[in-house]
This record gives sequence, C-alpha cells and structure tokens, in this order.
Amino acid sequence: MKTINAFDPTTLGSLPERQQTLIRRREALLGPAYRLFYQDPVELVRGQGVWVWDAEGRRYLDAYNNVVSLGHCHPQVVQALQQQAAQLNTHTRYLNEALLDYAERLLSTHHPSLDRLMFTCTGSEANDLALRLAQFHTGGSGVIVTDWAYHGVTQTTAACSPSLGPAAGGLPMVYTVAAPKRYGKTQADVATDFAAGIDQAITRMQADGVRPAALLFDSLFTSDGVFGEPAGFLQAAVARARAAGMLVIADEVQPGFGRTGQHMWGYQRHGIAPDLVTMGKPMGNGHPLAGLCARQDLLDAFGRETRYFNTFGGNTVSAAVGMAVLDVLEREQLPANAVAQGNYFRQGLQALAARHSWIGDVRQFGLFLGVELVHEADPHRPAAEVTTQVVNGMKTRGVLISACSRSANVLKIRPPLVLERGHVDLFIEALDDCLGSLSGF
Amino acid sequence: MKTINAFDPTTLGSLPERQQTLIRRREALLGPAYRLFYQDPVELVRGQGVWVWDAEGRRYLDAYNNVVSLGHCHPQVVQALQQQAAQLNTHTRYLNEALLDYAERLLSTHHPSLDRLMFTCTGSEANDLALRLAQFHTGGSGVIVTDWAYHGVTQTTAACSPSLGPAAGGLPMVYTVAAPKRYGKTQADVATDFAAGIDQAITRMQADGVRPAALLFDSLFTSDGVFGEPAGFLQAAVARARAAGMLVIADEVQPGFGRTGQHMWGYQRHGIAPDLVTMGKPMGNGHPLAGLCARQDLLDAFGRETRYFNTFGGNTVSAAVGMAVLDVLEREQLPANAVAQGNYFRQGLQALAARHSWIGDVRQFGLFLGVELVHEADPHRPAAEVTTQVVNGMKTRGVLISACSRSANVLKIRPPLVLERGHVDLFIEALDDCLGSLSGF
Repeated sequence: MKTINAFDPTTLGSLPERQQTLIRRREALLGPAYRLFYQDPVELVRGQGVWVWDAEGRRYLDAYNNVVSLGHCHPQVVQALQQQAAQLNTHTRYLNEALLDYAERLLSTHHPSLDRLMFTCTGSEANDLALRLAQFHTGGSGVIVTDWAYHGVTQTTAACSPSLGPAAGGLPMVYTVAAPKRYGKTQADVATDFAAGIDQAITRMQADGVRPAALLFDSLFTSDGVFGEPAGFLQAAVARARAAGMLVIADEVQPGFGRTGQHMWGYQRHGIAPDLVTMGKPMGNGHPLAGLCARQDLLDAFGRETRYFNTFGGNTVSAAVGMAVLDVLEREQLPANAVAQGNYFRQGLQALAARHSWIGDVRQFGLFLGVELVHEADPHRPAAEVTTQVVNGMKTRGVLISACSRSANVLKIRPPLVLERGHVDLFIEALDDCLGSLSGF
Repeated sequence: MKTINAFDPTTLGSLPERQQTLIRRREALLGPAYRLFYQDPVELVRGQGVWVWDAEGRRYLDAYNNVVSLGHCHPQVVQALQQQAAQLNTHTRYLNEALLDYAERLLSTHHPSLDRLMFTCTGSEANDLALRLAQFHTGGSGVIVTDWAYHGVTQTTAACSPSLGPAAGGLPMVYTVAAPKRYGKTQADVATDFAAGIDQAITRMQADGVRPAALLFDSLFTSDGVFGEPAGFLQAAVARARAAGMLVIADEVQPGFGRTGQHMWGYQRHGIAPDLVTMGKPMGNGHPLAGLCARQDLLDAFGRETRYFNTFGGNTVSAAVGMAVLDVLEREQLPANAVAQGNYFRQGLQALAARHSWIGDVRQFGLFLGVELVHEADPHRPAAEVTTQVVNGMKTRGVLISACSRSANVLKIRPPLVLERGHVDLFIEALDDCLGSLSGF
C-alpha cells in the first residue's frame, strides 16, 4: 500500500547523516506502519504562526498542517493550556462549568437541530462513536463512503477508509461511491452523478441483504481531492440516503472550524442538516480534542442502554483550550480572513494555471485548496509523478504542502488561517518556480 | 444499564441549587450516555498532589483518579507541557528526536521481546489497534475477555467490554471467561479455574467455527474486582491461549506505570511476555497520551499493507510530557513508595476488617487496592448497597473513591503514587467511621 508523499526508505543512504541516524532509530523503535513525509524528511524543532523551523534553522511556510489552524503556538491558546494544566486536569464524571460553557458555544455554531455534544480525543474516536450511534439507532450495519475517503484509524473507521487500502477490512459493511469530482463535468452533472452513485450503493447493499445504517462523508471530500462545487449538491444525496433509512454523518474533522471561510462547517455550504457531525483536528489547535454533535433523539436510547466515558475527552484542560480556540477564531475574524486570503490565493493559482498547463483545476474553499495536476498533452491524465515532484520541490523552496486523491495528483493546501498576502505571494512564487523547473516529464 | 456509583438523576431536586443548575445545563448540552459520580456530584475546581478542591473550597483526598498518578498538576510534568506547547506541536510525519528518546526509555521498562512502540491518544485507541493487529496477524476474529472486563469505548473495544452491557455489541466475536476471583478459593484453584475457563471459551469458539485471534486481559483485572494472586497464575492461561493460536494482549491502561509497586507493569508480576501491551491513563499524568508496544514481527505485515497515522498520537508535546512522567516516577522513586504506602494501607484495612465484618477481602498491589464488601450474616453475599453507601459516605468524609466488579461490591482505591502515611491514616479513619455509621442494613 503506497502512501502519497511518503518517504521511501530505500533512498535512506542519500540523506544527510543526522536524518539517516534519526530514521534508523525510528525504524528500530516505532512500528513500521508509520510513514514520514517527503523524499527528504524534515526534523521540525520550532513553530510560530505560519512558520516552522527545522533543526538546521531553516524556515518553512507551513501550508499543510490544518491542526494548528490558528497558527503554530498561538499565544492565547498556549496560555489557556498552561493555566488550566497547572490548576486542574480531571474528567467528565465531575461537574465542570467551563465544559458546559464551551459546549454551549460550540453548539451555537451548528444547525439548531444538532443540540447535544459528546467529547473524544481524536477524530477517529468521534467518527467511530458516530458510526456506533448510527448502527445502534438504525439496527443496520451498511455504511456508504466515497471511494478514497479517510475517516480514521480505529478498526471501524479504518474499515470506512478506502484510502488506507484493503488491509483495513472488517465490519461495518462498507459500500463505496465515486467522489463528486468536478473536473471535466458540468455543475448539474456533479449533483446528479453523486446522487445516482448513492442510489447504486443502496441498491447493492439491499441486494446483499445488508440493512442501511449511515451515509458518512467528509463535507469537503478532502481525501478524495477537495470537492465542494456546486454548493448544495449534497442535498440530493442526503435525501436518497434518508429515504433508505440511513443516518447522515458529516465528517468535519478536516473542513471544520471556519477553514472554508464563509461557513464554520463544510456541511453548511450545502444547506443540509446532518444527523451527526464529527469534529477534530483544529478543535484544540494541536491539543488532542475532538467530538461530535447530534440530535438528542439519536442519543437517548444509546444513553439509557450503555454509558460513554472517554477518560481524557472533554477534560478540564481540553475545555479551556477549546474555548480559547473559539475565542481566537472570532476575535481575529479568521473565517473572514480565510475568505479574503483564499480568494487572493485562488487568483494567484489561476494566473499560474494560465502559464503552466500542468494545472488542470484549482479548487478553493476559504483556505482549503486543491490543485489538480494533469499531463500537458492529455488534461484528463492525472500527473501523479509531477505532483510528487512539486510537493518535494515546494519543500526545497521552503513551503510545506502534501497531496491527496485516489490518483495522487491533487496538491492539498491548508495554511493556517492567520495567513497574510505576503505569505500567499511567497507560495505562488515558489510554485511558479517549481512548475517551471520540472524535469523528467 | 446501571453504572456503579453513578448519580441518579431522579434525585436531582434534593441537591443544592448550583449542582441542580449545572446538572440541568449538562443534560441540555451533553449526550445522555455520560454519567456523573456520586449521589451528590462534585464540582472540582483545583488539584494539587493528592488533593482536589470543590467550588465551595472543600478539600478531598483523591484516592480514585489513577490518571494523575504522580499527583494532580505535578510541577515537572506541567512545566514540560507548558514549554513544549509554546515551542512546537506537530506530529509523527516529521522527525522528532525527543519522541525517539521517549520511545527508547519506555521500551526499556518492558520485556525485551516487546521492541516496537505505537502511539495513540487514548487507551481505547490502543486496545482497538492491538485487536486490529491481532486479527490482522492471526486472520481470526475470536477474542476472549473476562466477564466484567472494560477495554474501551470504540466500537471494537466496547464489544470487548462486558461491563458496558450488551448494547455495546458487534464484532469481534467475543467469548467471556469468569474473572480469576480469589475470594473463597485456594491459590491453586485460582490458576486452575482460570485456565479451565480459557479452555472452555476456546472450545466454544471452535464449536462456533470462529478462528481464535486474541486473549485480551487487564493484567490486574481491575474492572472485574482487582485480582492478582497468586502471582504467576496467568502463565497457564497464556499457554492455553497460545496453543490455540491466539495472541496475548495485556491491557496495562489501569495497572501500568509502577502503580503495582514491585513491577512497572502488571504482566511482569506473572512472569509472562505478552505479544502486545497497551498503555494509557497515567502515561501523560492527565495529558491525552496512550500507546502500545509489540513484537516487531507482529507489526511488519500490517505496516507494509496499511499505514497508521494518529494526528495527535506521539506529537511533540506528548513526547515531552511522557518523558517527564518517566523522569518523575524514577527520581521520586514512586514505585517504591507504592510498595511502602500500599503495604501500610493494607495493614490498616486488615485491622479494620477485624472490627468490621462487612470487609470480606482486602486485595492490595502497590497502590491499587480492592476491598470486597460482603454481608455480615453471609460472607459470600456481595454487599452492593453497602458499597454504594460507603463510596458516598467516604465522599462526605472528604475522600474520593469508587467501586467495581460485576456484583458492584468492591471498593476501587487508586490514590496518587505520591501518597504519604498521613494520607493513609486519614483514609483509614474515614473508612472506619463510615463502616461504623452504616444504616439501613
């Protein structure tokens, strides 16, 4: 199973001494399922705002790590963590007013029908719990996901993550649908094709005698290649899933928390109200914090018949950190900045596309960007090798990004929401240079 | 599904105004699967060492929260967290020397055959991954657990947790065995009966055509009622499981990190070498940090065929915190203190048992203690209601504990490892008073 943008250990000998030593130690100490990024893996030692520094003092523009969505080491978040960690760190079996204040504020950003929260530590746990709840509520086991989805690493969520390869396996019963790709289609076709795919998956499920449980999707299809247009295309798919008795789970772990700019959550772009919404990554700006919100009636029977206790989930430190993240998002007006810088970013990329025919499509939703690279001679042939060279070339030029999609040909760009115009200029300049220097194609 | 020591919401009206308000807000904001502790739930606001304080300034001896095993807000751990959170918080796809140093040191505490680490955020994720690995390696799905085990809240681990009730359900195929209870048995019988139970579970599994995958146990059977004697009784069970082709997974989430005093890990008490060992709770003294170690050969094929990336697991902050925890354990000689104070604690409890016939058995392993309460007239009849009254009576007397076991009649006592003699005296005095004031039985 090849991982996009993973270091290839057979090239170890060509790396500088220190990297070789660290990688050898890593191989001797950690499980081999871990992957390093880049042909020449980075050793990061410091981060501040949009910048990270490696052990040699080299500075990189971090345009990939959407966990630190407010910027690396945001002072207000760090301070909230420092203060609460020194005061008390306990769990949800005691009363904690700060957690309730945080829950109230977080729920206020969601569709009003989503009125109850549950806290976990990771997006994997949140998706796992959402699937448990959906299967418990429907009595079914059939789940529909897109064919290059990623939803987590627990046994259940890995089984719902085709991008991890077939080794994930196991329950629940997973049926895949092609991602809602825009490239080379009319906008109307995107919605129609995706809904038709859902219909077909339901038909296959029913033919297998599998009872439907959930439609689970990343609301921006970020692992599949970053797809969000036309706004509203999910409505038809959601209607089909509900008609078949499925619950609808929006995975907001990657697109959530204002990254897409105009909306706090990716599902809001489509004007839908999911039954369950999972959240994670930027929720604690690096602190392990995740969770889900749901309609109360979906949680009631489950809550009566079993209990849920996540030792660290929703602890006092997480509540303080989570609240600080919401504070900063609002006070620094970061969603608005994601719109402004995102649009400027798109314009820069589109200008590059006019000069570099490798760029087949530019997709931009606030500061979540996907740039599809295709062959110059055949714009429908994915340019995976070029994508790898660009990702590594950008790193050489001091910019960290990665790639996604089943064809491994989409640059995945997720800079911190505190990005400024000058950073965008720097990025565009680096990409221009990189695309102009491609060799071997 | 009744939860031991859970607040009963029908008694809400009898609580003070502030608790009522907080509990009503909680019910309006959080999923109903959450449970509060105690008939009169506590609102904690500060912690230091063995002490926690509630919102009214009332101080409690915390003899339950084994997450903060080094004491609440241990200054060295808090400082490590504060410093690293202000410097860099990134993940395992970049090189990080501190994580390797931590991994090396953590592995050095384990059996030499366990030579590779993987990091998660929670014990649930660690057990989930261990089960994935076992099922991947064996090609089987059959898992044996004890009949009141708790191993986590993911779909897979909840299915392996009979103490959560039947609602957990689902794969893997779970077969239960009676816990290795000592009370009323000879030491030889404990080992023989437990191994025989494993044999019977394997026979049932094979009769069902289910291929064996793993024997999963908490090495101190802490949810079942805290069982560890005679040392070595697990050897026969492990041999039976291995003969049937199962991997052996020791869940050290509760007993691990020196709590049992003489050994860093509960499995070491039995002189066994598990195939996989999971760790959690006290690993970060409150910071969400967990993981597993395993033999390399069990990880190889999995690592080739799929990848494992846990966004927050093993991040730079977790590595710094985890290392600080190991530093403190060693420098303050806390395992030795767990032996000394644990023995003193046991003597105090045994002295109480001579005067209060409610105490049927005292089980002590370092600072993990289980006190089995039985009826005075019939020492084999579990005294669950008395246990509930004692847990709540201890809280009224300023001491936090809880209870466990299928019969809900075992006091579960896990004070911080920085406990001193004076704290033990205070505990024994409170319990003496509490047992002397029981009413309604």
